[in-house]
Amino acid sequence: MNQPKIKHALSVTREADFAAWYQDVISEADMAEESGVRGCMVIKPWGYGIWERIQQVMDARIKAAGVQNCYFPLFIPLSYFAKEAEHVDGFAKEMAVVTHHRLIADGKGGLVPDPDAKLEEPLIVRPTSETVIGAAMARWIQSWRDLPLLTNQWANVVRWEMRTRMFLRTSEFLWQEGHTAHADRDGAMEETLRALEMYRSFSEDVLAMPVIAGEKPENERFPGAVATYSIEAMMQDGKALQAGTSHYLGTGFAEAAGIQYQNKEGQQAHCHTTSWGVSTRLIGGVIMTHGDDDGLRVPPRIAPQQIVILPMLRDDDGDAALLAYCEEVRAKVAGLSALGEPIRVLLDKRPGKATQKRWAWVKKGAPVILEVGGRDMAEGKVSVIRRDRLWSDAAKVNFAPQDRDEFAAGAAALLEDIQSALHSEAAARRDANIVRGVTSMDDLSAHFADGNKYPGWVELGWSRPSGDELEEVIAKLKTLKLTIRNTPMDAGTPSGQCLFTGKPAVETIYVARSY
Amino acid sequence: MNQPKIKHALSVTREADFAAWYQDVISEADMAEESGVRGCMVIKPWGYGIWERIQQVMDARIKAAGVQNCYFPLFIPLSYFAKEAEHVDGFAKEMAVVTHHRLIADGKGGLVPDPDAKLEEPLIVRPTSETVIGAAMARWIQSWRDLPLLTNQWANVVRWEMRTRMFLRTSEFLWQEGHTAHADRDGAMEETLRALEMYRSFSEDVLAMPVIAGEKPENERFPGAVATYSIEAMMQDGKALQAGTSHYLGTGFAEAAGIQYQNKEGQQAHCHTTSWGVSTRLIGGVIMTHGDDDGLRVPPRIAPQQIVILPMLRDDDGDAALLAYCEEVRAKVAGLSALGEPIRVLLDKRPGKATQKRWAWVKKGAPVILEVGGRDMAEGKVSVIRRDRLWSDAAKVNFAPQDRDEFAAGAAALLEDIQSALHSEAAARRDANIVRGVTSMDDLSAHFADGNKYPGWVELGWSRPSGDELEEVIAKLKTLKLTIRNTPMDAGTPSGQCLFTGKPAVETIYVARSY
Repeated sequence: MNQPKIKHALSVTREADFAAWYQDVISEADMAEESGVRGCMVIKPWGYGIWERIQQVMDARIKAAGVQNCYFPLFIPLSYFAKEAEHVDGFAKEMAVVTHHRLIADGKGGLVPDPDAKLEEPLIVRPTSETVIGAAMARWIQSWRDLPLLTNQWANVVRWEMRTRMFLRTSEFLWQEGHTAHADRDGAMEETLRALEMYRSFSEDVLAMPVIAGEKPENERFPGAVATYSIEAMMQDGKALQAGTSHYLGTGFAEAAGIQYQNKEGQQAHCHTTSWGVSTRLIGGVIMTHGDDDGLRVPPRIAPQQIVILPMLRDDDGDAALLAYCEEVRAKVAGLSALGEPIRVLLDKRPGKATQKRWAWVKKGAPVILEVGGRDMAEGKVSVIRRDRLWSDAAKVNFAPQDRDEFAAGAAALLEDIQSALHSEAAARRDANIVRGVTSMDDLSAHFADGNKYPGWVELGWSRPSGDELEEVIAKLKTLKLTIRNTPMDAGTPSGQCLFTGKPAVETIYVARSY
Repeated sequence: MNQPKIKHALSVTREADFAAWYQDVISEADMAEESGVRGCMVIKPWGYGIWERIQQVMDARIKAAGVQNCYFPLFIPLSYFAKEAEHVDGFAKEMAVVTHHRLIADGKGGLVPDPDAKLEEPLIVRPTSETVIGAAMARWIQSWRDLPLLTNQWANVVRWEMRTRMFLRTSEFLWQEGHTAHADRDGAMEETLRALEMYRSFSEDVLAMPVIAGEKPENERFPGAVATYSIEAMMQDGKALQAGTSHYLGTGFAEAAGIQYQNKEGQQAHCHTTSWGVSTRLIGGVIMTHGDDDGLRVPPRIAPQQIVILPMLRDDDGDAALLAYCEEVRAKVAGLSALGEPIRVLLDKRPGKATQKRWAWVKKGAPVILEVGGRDMAEGKVSVIRRDRLWSDAAKVNFAPQDRDEFAAGAAALLEDIQSALHSEAAARRDANIVRGVTSMDDLSAHFADGNKYPGWVELGWSRPSGDELEEVIAKLKTLKLTIRNTPMDAGTPSGQCLFTGKPAVETIYVARSY
């Protein structure tokens, strides 16, 4: 006998073509689209709504840590980059350069930058606000009393990318960048690790996306940083996604920007600074962590709508009563709280066929869909679809008719359960795809051979080589398209030898393909 | 006997030099500063905190009206402006033009735009997203079922301004732009006026800034609009500030952008569109409405901190008990609500002299300051300073020692009273500075003569001239540095003659100097 076959909502499965599936989710969930401007996307309401939720929850945590939001200019004078360039051979930076401040008609029906309106000094569209914030800190900090100075900015930034993918790598993206200045190393390191832990717990608790927090190897440090930390998430194709970074910058940036303070002894000293950021890339991570062959599944904490009520309208006289019934359910649920906030519930009254609307919400990944028809109303019920358990064993959509008051009474627990189930599923998959016990380059090479479609991550002990010795390791890994992700914060000292150097292993690392 | 003389916190008074006073408030309240980038400001925590409050309250109202937030690209291809240019003689637009996507070293220690990285088509930094949103609407709308389409964006935009003033006119500013498409004129006009009313009530209720909502004269319409509406506020120097606009665009923009839908009869038709926006300019309005010679006064609804507790620390062993006492007061007040939200209360523990800190908060305009010293603590009291009633008749700072529980019990009412008192004060001043009964150009000219420092607004009846006849009126007014602000929504038909044309007056207008 044949297994019942599920007819999935998307035309491409993850198994068939993961990259095409990713694009399909974005398109079918109506999250974003190409804008017609190279490398820039239009973020549509469902995608932007998820970003707003991320901002809201993250911003509250940033503020709770005593960090204050500011806004710095979009444009940075070219000269601010000159200092950086001095130290870099063959300096070339992909950045959007503003050279003129006026357009005029070219006399042939077109427009051109006005040659009379050429800027004396070109302006750069910020790729990060590091330099302007450094200059501001130099103005703002005089004394130890001004420390720590804890600032954050929510902004758009631009990096001219040659190959772009929506949410993961776009020329313009949205992010937050925290920049802090401290009296000493300890204060700055504490802040660096606080931000890292904030990102870790945010990813786990809010995005339901398990991550490994750890230190990047020396070659992956932010230029000028003394230490760079990241959170790394495993996508469903086994690749790693660097989802957030936090940098301890020592006094190097303070020296370059002149960020000094007078200490309690009356002496001038340079500050120790940090920076840390996450971006709209997190949404790419959510898609590749929780999406399935029916579209996106949004964790309830970041779902713009957690419960969507779909009346089965028939375009007849019965519709008014059905809508009134649905509105009662909506109002009741809207008065409840789940996961510490009022439940976000939508009654979708738009015209259109009920099944089409159902599949639109399935593809968007609303955590719970309530379908309500005439019979449900007559029986005081709603038909509950739980997005993370969409299909029955018989390959049918899993409806669960439920008394409406019972549904309301259990709504908070249901959303909490979905949040937790998505995390468990992703954590189990991640753990199942971390391989240990690889002890030679040959083993490593075999593990990542082409036949192994989703090889996941390999956990290794290594000798933490530095300089040229590290470069050799990186080069070897590059031939296998591999990178070192990070050294987890909580790992003890491994036993055995480093498979790259043959020396005793001193540190655990993850090796993986990555986005 | 001499009147007791108040020693104000600012070094410049409004009376002495209103423009210098404005800059002084911004600087002394630590709201913003010049960035070193021409025409762009750094918005500091107190200024940005006010903007965040504006965003938060306005965004909730925008969403409540069914409008959905999106995000559109920062860059707009030059060709999008070509259509606009075709119809404009001597087209010249002050805009930031991106021409290159890479910087390289010039070999002489400097950096230059890489000649090999010149863009085929220059990109414009958005002065508004009108054109890209129009292109998106054309993609998104097919049928009457897709209407109305209600979108909004919070973003930074750039207009290359020759003369800039912080918050009022900066090259880069932050704003929201609503863009909506409708099936017919009635729907679009309803939305245009809904947005106008949203701005009016927001200004009055939230900013405590009285405004007059009305239609702009034909010459002040947004290019291409069928009707433009504004809210106009009177600043303390009597000048008008256009604080928000809402446009009914007819089908002109839809025709240019190809925004069409199939109606219920199966025919293609163009949409009627609207757009509406407010910006960081509102903060300039708040400063010039509520500021006084001691700095800013922030209406409680938009104050990042509504109540600031200042312990009179003495850097000795008694500090710990005092801080604990203040923390009890803070926790108690933080658990209360005022004006529909939890009270925002800050315990300012930073080191520094208590009087210096007091004056810093006075200049920032925190609505209520509680000073707490050892004696207050011993008596279970707090010393209350109400920012809008700072000075006693004896020219001393108005302290009111109050039992701490009594203070907490009355905190919500106090904040509500301050919110309302600031509005009443501004409304009374506005009403006192609107002049009626001016019946000739000579009278008008005399009223706005140089001797009259703060002449306010003149309310007139006019014949609503159009075309060349209107141009003549505008030219006459221009010689007096005057502009027509708007025709208030609720005004009846005036009696008498139009002082410009001699024809019967049909409409009321406000004439004023403006920002």
